[in-house]
Amino acid sequence: MSLTLQRFVESARFQNFVIAVIVINAITLGLETSATAMAKAGPLLLALDRAALAVFVVEIVLKLIVYRLRFFRSGWNVFDFAIVAITLAPVGEGFSVLRSLRILRALRLISVVPSMRKVVSALLRAIPGMGSVLTLLLLVFYVASVMTTKLFGADFPDWFGSIGASFYTLFQVMTLESWSMGIARPVMEAHPMAWVFFVSFILSTTFAVLNLFIAIVVDAMSVVEHEEQSQTRALVAVDHDELLHELRALRAEIAEMRGAQRRTS
Amino acid sequence: MSLTLQRFVESARFQNFVIAVIVINAITLGLETSATAMAKAGPLLLALDRAALAVFVVEIVLKLIVYRLRFFRSGWNVFDFAIVAITLAPVGEGFSVLRSLRILRALRLISVVPSMRKVVSALLRAIPGMGSVLTLLLLVFYVASVMTTKLFGADFPDWFGSIGASFYTLFQVMTLESWSMGIARPVMEAHPMAWVFFVSFILSTTFAVLNLFIAIVVDAMSVVEHEEQSQTRALVAVDHDELLHELRALRAEIAEMRGAQRRTS
Amino acid sequence: MSLTLQRFVESARFQNFVIAVIVINAITLGLETSATAMAKAGPLLLALDRAALAVFVVEIVLKLIVYRLRFFRSGWNVFDFAIVAITLAPVGEGFSVLRSLRILRALRLISVVPSMRKVVSALLRAIPGMGSVLTLLLLVFYVASVMTTKLFGADFPDWFGSIGASFYTLFQVMTLESWSMGIARPVMEAHPMAWVFFVSFILSTTFAVLNLFIAIVVDAMSVVEHEEQSQTRALVAVDHDELLHELRALRAEIAEMRGAQRRTS
Amino acid sequence: MSLTLQRFVESARFQNFVIAVIVINAITLGLETSATAMAKAGPLLLALDRAALAVFVVEIVLKLIVYRLRFFRSGWNVFDFAIVAITLAPVGEGFSVLRSLRILRALRLISVVPSMRKVVSALLRAIPGMGSVLTLLLLVFYVASVMTTKLFGADFPDWFGSIGASFYTLFQVMTLESWSMGIARPVMEAHPMAWVFFVSFILSTTFAVLNLFIAIVVDAMSVVEHEEQSQTRALVAVDHDELLHELRALRAEIAEMRGAQRRTS
Repeated sequence: MSLTLQRFVESARFQNFVIAVIVINAITLGLETSATAMAKAGPLLLALDRAALAVFVVEIVLKLIVYRLRFFRSGWNVFDFAIVAITLAPVGEGFSVLRSLRILRALRLISVVPSMRKVVSALLRAIPGMGSVLTLLLLVFYVASVMTTKLFGADFPDWFGSIGASFYTLFQVMTLESWSMGIARPVMEAHPMAWVFFVSFILSTTFAVLNLFIAIVVDAMSVVEHEEQSQTRALVAVDHDELLHELRALRAEIAEMRGAQRRTS
Repeated sequence: MSLTLQRFVESARFQNFVIAVIVINAITLGLETSATAMAKAGPLLLALDRAALAVFVVEIVLKLIVYRLRFFRSGWNVFDFAIVAITLAPVGEGFSVLRSLRILRALRLISVVPSMRKVVSALLRAIPGMGSVLTLLLLVFYVASVMTTKLFGADFPDWFGSIGASFYTLFQVMTLESWSMGIARPVMEAHPMAWVFFVSFILSTTFAVLNLFIAIVVDAMSVVEHEEQSQTRALVAVDHDELLHELRALRAEIAEMRGAQRRTS
Repeated sequence: MSLTLQRFVESARFQNFVIAVIVINAITLGLETSATAMAKAGPLLLALDRAALAVFVVEIVLKLIVYRLRFFRSGWNVFDFAIVAITLAPVGEGFSVLRSLRILRALRLISVVPSMRKVVSALLRAIPGMGSVLTLLLLVFYVASVMTTKLFGADFPDWFGSIGASFYTLFQVMTLESWSMGIARPVMEAHPMAWVFFVSFILSTTFAVLNLFIAIVVDAMSVVEHEEQSQTRALVAVDHDELLHELRALRAEIAEMRGAQRRTS
Repeated sequence: MSLTLQRFVESARFQNFVIAVIVINAITLGLETSATAMAKAGPLLLALDRAALAVFVVEIVLKLIVYRLRFFRSGWNVFDFAIVAITLAPVGEGFSVLRSLRILRALRLISVVPSMRKVVSALLRAIPGMGSVLTLLLLVFYVASVMTTKLFGADFPDWFGSIGASFYTLFQVMTLESWSMGIARPVMEAHPMAWVFFVSFILSTTFAVLNLFIAIVVDAMSVVEHEEQSQTRALVAVDHDELLHELRALRAEIAEMRGAQRRTS
């Protein structure tokens, strides 16, 4: 039975059905935000949403039956499972935040459509190479957060009241959003030397981010470069082998000739 | 007759005349925005504008006579046709928005001047390679829009009142314009955890945009790379052929020598 | 006499003297902005400034005597001449704007120090390759300016009152500074569809700027690429020549051998 | 004794102990910012901080004993020494700014963990190549600061009151933060032509920064390129040597054959 189930779960028809359900669910969830649509077809939209959720639950249960614990070995399956689990909770209850997370199900399109999977995989592949610079950036953020909390926290509790608040404000500063008119200039009125901190923080973090970015570009380029060079090297190697083969044949012929010459003489 | 017409339409003189009309029309439309210019030479400017429009209409009619339905096969012709059609409508009427679109005719310079055409073609060529990341970005935007409409729509109807408003606000957030001081901080006063959403949204969308950009750089670079490598490979192949030819000649000579040797012995 | 003058003008000692005068002048002009410095040593600073200007005038006069009209063939000389000419005017008069332009003389360091010249030349070399995209960008700016002046000029005269004002505002929008909270949202209150214009303008101009940037990167990279490939190709060619030479020598030897063989037989 | 000490100081166990102390110290300094944590375990946190400082002092004293003046030859040692020296001062006194600098000790992780050292070294390696453009940028900033101080200083003392204030404001303008709505538009109300300055300043500095960035990308790419090409060239050279060796062997054989032929004839 399990084999038939597996064939069914992995069939293109079933996959397309799930994709269709995801798309329809994304549309109904979008329509739920419109008061007009809710007034006209509210019960239908909610029913469709529950039906879609039911399909997702059945899909995951089927996959769990087929693959058992192997199911969790694939990151994409874990992703699907987490999204359905999150959005399952609020159906019965009234937590508005959790209810609004139901639209996350539309992200399942990424795991279901192979071409989308590829794009996300490609994006994620860039991250490990960024690991060391990211760690450095995190360290700089931590040091800067503790420092600003100590220095400016008492005067500007909204921005630097706690390490968390400082972290957020420094993230804002790193994106350069209102860093001067909004944050640094008011702070400088209480602490005239604050510009030293803000300017060095911006220079060092943007420089680090720039290097993150450069690392990705260079990585992507070196793949292209390597492939092209490999082809050139393969051509060179094949040409070389052909010439060497020809030369050795020539040498063998001459060796034979010399043998014949010796015999005649 | 059609052939004479075609020669006329495709002649350099006619093309240059159209370019001149476009430039003059662009200038008169610019002058129309100046109250002083309108007071001094208003009727002349309007007459010139109508004359230019007449030229464009005649040009398109001539081309339609010459090429018939083939006319619409070229994207540039469709572009010209659409621009003239749009700006034709308001001449008689008083729709101010449509009237102000008349300046779009200046964009016809792009389709008429070959070097401009090339630039735009080159820019557009980069887009297909961005398709999959753009689709992903659109999906993320849709999910984020529905989510913010549900979460913050009631409290901030101006920014997140509908999916459309959310889309626009999230586009603003992606460009990093006032995202924190203008949008996220006010939202965080009502929803303290909103920073989780904004920070993740910014990180994921800027990362995706960055990858769009990297894709274009790598694509452009790999063309250069491939050309250079092809030249190197061609050189290697030619050199190889020459050596191989020389070697084979040598081998033939030796084979003949052996034949002679055999005959003598 | 002219030859002695030329030697003097081109001597390293004279060049270094001019560099020293530029640096001293830049410092005195900086000190002039400080009220304390002016109170303590105002007359000295002004005297030093006049002395520096005298040196620059004499330098240019000497060069004009030596090179005559050839002087103006070099862009750097024209640059020096223009800067001194601009800052000469206000010495006698009281035009504060022109007086404040005197600091532009410090930019003469660029034309006098060879390494700075190189950097600026390298930067400028990138511009021609950007020509066609820059023209396109200018056209888009002109069309957008005329359109916004017509559409929003009446309601927002400060931002879009004339083509010039629109140009400036659109430049601000292109840099993404306050484009939404500062410009687009207020405009959208009067013209609800204005977002269509702003979003398309931002997408198209940032895309064009991005391509400008990519063109420079690719251009810089392809120079590096070409050099490396040329070296590889040179190596391949030299190797090939050596092999071919060896092969031909071999062939000549065998031809001789065959000749000997024939003679013996 | 010194040798035993050196072995101890360089042992992995000692290094790991120092890393642990740095991490614990970073955490206690973070906790010090929380009022709750200070109320519950304030004396403990302060005691841990003093203990950590004692460890750092002892570590540096030991290293000074072992390496003596050679200690200061390594930039990383100077970095460690400076950080401990800075944060040593305020322990006894009550300077709040210096006290808040204690968190800088967490940056010692960079000098102690080898992988972090590598990342920072890699980042710093990019700087020399940027030297000439940075000098140019500094010159442009100086000229622009003096000019804006003279032109706008009287009307906008907060932004352009002194060269220092102008420098900071121009840095803000270069990051594009509120440059137009916050700075340029107010200035333009008093000086209508100020846009000329701001637009040229933005165009020239962003163009220079862009070129800084491109220089780093190209530098990083050309390293990759050079390595790949070196490998290709090595392959070509090895192939060539093999062929040449084979050819020379052939030639020697033929030379011998001719010798034999001569002897027989």
